Amino acid sequence: MRAAHQRTSSYLHKTPIMSSEKIDRIVGVPVLFKAEHLQKTGSFKVRGALNSAILAKQENAKGVIAHSSGNHGQALAWAAQKIGLSCQIVVPKNAPISKIDGMKEYKTDLVFCESTVIDRERVCAEQSKKLGYHFVNPYDCESMINGHASIGFEILDQVGDQIDSIFVSIGGGGLASSLAFLIGNLRPDISVILVEPESKKLSNLLENRIPCPVDTLETIADGVRVAHVGTLCEPILRNYCSGNVVSVKEEEIKEAMKLIWTRMKQRVEPSAALAFAGVLYHKPAHLTRPLVMLCGGNVDLDYVI
Amino acid sequence: MRAAHQRTSSYLHKTPIMSSEKIDRIVGVPVLFKAEHLQKTGSFKVRGALNSAILAKQENAKGVIAHSSGNHGQALAWAAQKIGLSCQIVVPKNAPISKIDGMKEYKTDLVFCESTVIDRERVCAEQSKKLGYHFVNPYDCESMINGHASIGFEILDQVGDQIDSIFVSIGGGGLASSLAFLIGNLRPDISVILVEPESKKLSNLLENRIPCPVDTLETIADGVRVAHVGTLCEPILRNYCSGNVVSVKEEEIKEAMKLIWTRMKQRVEPSAALAFAGVLYHKPAHLTRPLVMLCGGNVDLDYVI
Repeated sequence: MRAAHQRTSSYLHKTPIMSSEKIDRIVGVPVLFKAEHLQKTGSFKVRGALNSAILAKQENAKGVIAHSSGNHGQALAWAAQKIGLSCQIVVPKNAPISKIDGMKEYKTDLVFCESTVIDRERVCAEQSKKLGYHFVNPYDCESMINGHASIGFEILDQVGDQIDSIFVSIGGGGLASSLAFLIGNLRPDISVILVEPESKKLSNLLENRIPCPVDTLETIADGVRVAHVGTLCEPILRNYCSGNVVSVKEEEIKEAMKLIWTRMKQRVEPSAALAFAGVLYHKPAHLTRPLVMLCGGNVDLDYVI
Repeated sequence: MRAAHQRTSSYLHKTPIMSSEKIDRIVGVPVLFKAEHLQKTGSFKVRGALNSAILAKQENAKGVIAHSSGNHGQALAWAAQKIGLSCQIVVPKNAPISKIDGMKEYKTDLVFCESTVIDRERVCAEQSKKLGYHFVNPYDCESMINGHASIGFEILDQVGDQIDSIFVSIGGGGLASSLAFLIGNLRPDISVILVEPESKKLSNLLENRIPCPVDTLETIADGVRVAHVGTLCEPILRNYCSGNVVSVKEEEIKEAMKLIWTRMKQRVEPSAALAFAGVLYHKPAHLTRPLVMLCGGNVDLDYVI
């Protein structure tokens, strides 16, 4: 994780820490926000994607490839362009135009497929084999998890003495397991709290090994619709975060997002608001110095809360 | 202006300077943004309002009063509450609920009137006389103009050596004349460029003394709909800014706002985007180090570009 941080930091923003007195009053304790929506390409994904692309290049891969309808595709395309590596993204036909435009901007090669997971994986595997490109999984991937850890190093450097907890949204678990591992080892006094849409039922998996019965969650937080965490992420999360899962209702995500948009004037995406909803509605009383991970800001222009 | 800056600075944010590499590439030169939408109450108005409220209190006024449907009312209400002075805002019945809620939050006394300028002024004058409250004009007012100058001091301190111009939206002219006077005296090498909706035709007033034929402009930039600049502002603007007016189309305001929302993830209001539209579409070629004043961020939650 330290090596990944050193490898990538000169290309990336050290994103700022924000706060709002109004939000402090509402929550009743001071709340800090890590503004990762101001990161290159508008989300944390670029940290892991850049680490993955650099490693692929070092291993003489001809390029990198992924299937994505959103932030991961943009992040990998940006990273590949930055270090001069070829890149192909397999995009489901129903992906939002804004995300497709985002990927095109980084001059990546786009291949379209059907919107099913099976077709995405099939086309991606075929193309990867044909082109000799290195496949980069969005979350179940060591180089992604290690790359994301630079957020944790930055937080400790910026406000490590001011926080007792980090609230992070959980989808596939790449960012969450990265933070859980890093913070759990360097600063076990800081709790990493996983914030999920209530239908995910992650506690059932971590504590009773009962997986979520569906593959995709019905939630406005489009960045965390994947129901299952990665096989690499699961044991890390079980080890460091059992008992530290909070479940949030859709209405609570909306209210959290309204506060961030109107009070902080920051256009974060719903999956970032999800982490704040965890603090706003479900903060355990013993935690009095929370930090909220604002993981991304890629929300369509016509999105209305 | 220096005295006003000292009087108010401990209550206010020194707002940050922002930039975006993507926007630099689009414009072709580095562009800096003064993030005044992150100021208390979400707009620059609070700088002048606080200076006005402190001076009124020093002069033993029983309170302060203004008529407002928007940022000025919120700013004065906040300022009065902060220094423990009574405050009444006369609000037109058709004011947006979000702005009324904003004013209520600062525990100000609200009085409603008809939406015409005549009725606003009549009710405000009556109430001012009856209560013994000091009337604070939103822009045609020395204490407001002097109070706003703290933005100029901050800009010079933060990036004075990196800019050759400041682009500022113009409505009633309080902020614009404050900056024009301060910068024109301290740093005459920096141009203050006034950015207007095209129907305002301010050059006609400054150069030929022909006033705008209407009282209210049809523009999405609701913060600058007042067509006429204040009588205190006009000679300052004529002296320092003649020949430095750029006129912007409505579509250009929208495009500028889209870029700020999607690229910078900052929820600024249309009157802030107006200033950036001036750089984006009408920057004089000899200016290569522009700073854009993002004057406010109070935009309704359901606003769609």
